[in-house]
Amino acid sequence: MQKHNFSAGPCILPQSVLQKSAEAVLNFNNSNLSLIEISHRSKDFVEVMENARNLALEHLGLLNKGYQALYLQGGASLQFLMVAYNLLEKKAAYLNTGTWSNNAIKEAKLIGEVVEVATSKNENFNFIPKNYTVPSDADYFHCTSNNTIFGTQMQVFPDTEIPMVCDMSSDIFSRQLDFSKFDLIYAGAQKNMGPSGTTLVVVKENILEKVSRNIPSMLNYKVHINKESMFNTPSVFAVYVSMLTLQWLKDLGGIPKIEKANTTKAQLLYNEIDRNSLFEGFVPNKEDRSKMNATFNLKNETLKATFDEQLKQAGINGLNGHRSVGGYRASMYNALPLESVQILVDVMQHLEKQA
Amino acid sequence: MQKHNFSAGPCILPQSVLQKSAEAVLNFNNSNLSLIEISHRSKDFVEVMENARNLALEHLGLLNKGYQALYLQGGASLQFLMVAYNLLEKKAAYLNTGTWSNNAIKEAKLIGEVVEVATSKNENFNFIPKNYTVPSDADYFHCTSNNTIFGTQMQVFPDTEIPMVCDMSSDIFSRQLDFSKFDLIYAGAQKNMGPSGTTLVVVKENILEKVSRNIPSMLNYKVHINKESMFNTPSVFAVYVSMLTLQWLKDLGGIPKIEKANTTKAQLLYNEIDRNSLFEGFVPNKEDRSKMNATFNLKNETLKATFDEQLKQAGINGLNGHRSVGGYRASMYNALPLESVQILVDVMQHLEKQA
Repeated sequence: MQKHNFSAGPCILPQSVLQKSAEAVLNFNNSNLSLIEISHRSKDFVEVMENARNLALEHLGLLNKGYQALYLQGGASLQFLMVAYNLLEKKAAYLNTGTWSNNAIKEAKLIGEVVEVATSKNENFNFIPKNYTVPSDADYFHCTSNNTIFGTQMQVFPDTEIPMVCDMSSDIFSRQLDFSKFDLIYAGAQKNMGPSGTTLVVVKENILEKVSRNIPSMLNYKVHINKESMFNTPSVFAVYVSMLTLQWLKDLGGIPKIEKANTTKAQLLYNEIDRNSLFEGFVPNKEDRSKMNATFNLKNETLKATFDEQLKQAGINGLNGHRSVGGYRASMYNALPLESVQILVDVMQHLEKQA
Repeated sequence: MQKHNFSAGPCILPQSVLQKSAEAVLNFNNSNLSLIEISHRSKDFVEVMENARNLALEHLGLLNKGYQALYLQGGASLQFLMVAYNLLEKKAAYLNTGTWSNNAIKEAKLIGEVVEVATSKNENFNFIPKNYTVPSDADYFHCTSNNTIFGTQMQVFPDTEIPMVCDMSSDIFSRQLDFSKFDLIYAGAQKNMGPSGTTLVVVKENILEKVSRNIPSMLNYKVHINKESMFNTPSVFAVYVSMLTLQWLKDLGGIPKIEKANTTKAQLLYNEIDRNSLFEGFVPNKEDRSKMNATFNLKNETLKATFDEQLKQAGINGLNGHRSVGGYRASMYNALPLESVQILVDVMQHLEKQA
């Protein structure tokens, strides 16, 4: 049975990428060796790493603009710490839009002073704060572009005099932005980029080496830059699959093309959530709704068992909401076909007709 | 053409493991979903993580003995830092047997005082120091069981009153030891355990939470233990392949069985290195030679081009020595068949007959 994979992450990847990845595990580049049993210093893998780094910069329009792309380990969670270690001298400014922002703030506080410029915590993070001021004497401003758990997404980013750092784990490569506004972007691969196990860091080199502390090697962006993202053995398989996914996106027409597809998918589902009498969206402000993760609830919880069974029958996977929100969450990442959203909408409409 | 893979790491893995891994990338557990596109919180993957953790403890004879097994990201290089962060209050004692010990010492020095109990640096690390004293007032003693680059291996571990920490990246699961002598063992997966991207940490819980500093979440063993190695999204593919490899080892008869095979392979090659008039071993003391990585040189460098060509013709891969040693290095990890070593020996003998 064909599955419709709405998993929040790790999440759906293009079928052609999965096919090529499986082949490489058996026989990489016709070498009669597996991708995962060759040296990361071999010519073939060095080329993979270079391609993966270049493709990331190319998609973001940041090639040859003073930025470096790194594929590191440890997920966004390690970036919460690394950002502060590398950039926080006196104080840093954070926008708190949910669980991940909150965790980033927690780790930064171990390194220095943190100013929370705004938060949507009192409304269980169901909106994006606006009209906040970023202090110009902070070392950097940190925000989270998309909140996987609550289903909100930033549409506007402030103009700052200080470096802007953004956790784009769950919406990178999904929409056009002026990425040159950002000085450091990080993203765990396991949404729009690849499998878990690697984390993309795109950093403008001139913001580094301004803090006075000694930074441990593995936490030091400059160390990784100097070694072209091979200071230590990288997560070979995850980097390779990320490269294939970025190549797939390029062949498809890049971010402008995928953004259109993502908008169509999101409109289809949100229109149904708003139209269907049985459901309500978790995020009231339409402009704050995420195109990646649509969060919604059944108004009448007694229909839950029936709805869940019908989702299962339709082959729909990964629609449960996060425990801090409840209800449902449809994650519609780049590789999810429109057809899968249509099938979800069909199940929602079928439930309404029956009810 | 069949390859004989002597790569130092990432390295050869069992063919059956590669086969199952490739299948899981396409269709995991007959779910019609890929292993790498499902939630790490799904029942199927939680089971993988549990099995991987239990198998590691079982092989080491440490199940239900106060130890926890974790699969973390960042490689042994991040462990150099984490060990010190979690255990170093006043001072720590390190045995310096090569590049990796040296790097571990460098990171620990950022956290506290380090005493080097002995080093083989003056002889380019071609032996294992003996007769050193471990200070009883240090917080822990750290050593590296096998030195991939120089081809040396510790046979005897000191009896210490203080916790003993060991980097076993390149020989874990290859030989029987009394693993209960160790309080913390870590190992990057990419030798005897799986692909790069995950790192096994086996730690005795009662040595933790003794330092006074605030430890960042991602660097805190206790945080990872409390979340059963799922504090953040783990490196799903690497953990799965590690689980398969540990299961393969169990089906084979475990460490006692593989140790015999490893001894046979090492004897075959070292006997040839010592017998063949064209070659000499890099490590003079036979008792210090590694059974995992045999380092050797051609006495007459003019034969190099011929030898290299004959290695290539025989399908031998990954035999170049590390740049800090030169010459050749044959890495004979668990999954390397005896047949591959025999073919290498045949090439060496053929060269001698020709010369």
